Amino acid sequence: MVQIEYYRQAIQALLTRYSQIQPQQSEVESQLLLDPVRDQYQLMRVGWNRLSRVYHVVMHFDIKDGKVWIQQNMTDIDVAQELVEAGVAKEDIVLGLHPPYKRQFTGYGVV
Amino acid sequence: MVQIEYYRQAIQALLTRYSQIQPQQSEVESQLLLDPVRDQYQLMRVGWNRLSRVYHVVMHFDIKDGKVWIQQNMTDIDVAQELVEAGVAKEDIVLGLHPPYKRQFTGYGVV
Repeated sequence: MVQIEYYRQAIQALLTRYSQIQPQQSEVESQLLLDPVRDQYQLMRVGWNRLSRVYHVVMHFDIKDGKVWIQQNMTDIDVAQELVEAGVAKEDIVLGLHPPYKRQFTGYGVV
Repeated sequence: MVQIEYYRQAIQALLTRYSQIQPQQSEVESQLLLDPVRDQYQLMRVGWNRLSRVYHVVMHFDIKDGKVWIQQNMTDIDVAQELVEAGVAKEDIVLGLHPPYKRQFTGYGVV
């Protein structure tokens, strides 16, 4: 349980850091969603760029059965590597963006 | 502050109710993200349908300055009407899915 708590903190620190990069459009917000009860963690961009809706989940992690799942990453940042550097064990990271059959070849965790 | 707490409960009850509709695909999950600290509330569908990624924010509400914003609704359910029936004042609901200039014509709140 101590390890899980550490993973929670690592994810929230990473998302909070990237949430400080402000969108260029004035009517677009960076939104953090941190839900440690259901272990869901997101960074979003939401708003309007003139008449175009802006609505993206930029990064999304969750924790299931002790493993950190990367569910979304719209950046070119290697978030899995950043989590490893923050102390998350590589085998405890699941690349949810790869289909299940591919995960055994990623070097990261499988379920 | 009592009213805001009531709005929080109404949103969470609505999302929790719809989260109980299970996806047909076995590798797709309904995920709730409830963050009453940042007042962000979501229902997602996340997973894989064979080799196709499934990743949708189905419904998303947030509360800003005492108003309930509908940021996403991928269903044909009239969630604004459901919130009104649950006791949220119509002028306290902002249809974030409409561009700002249109909101004055919606009968719902403006910022």
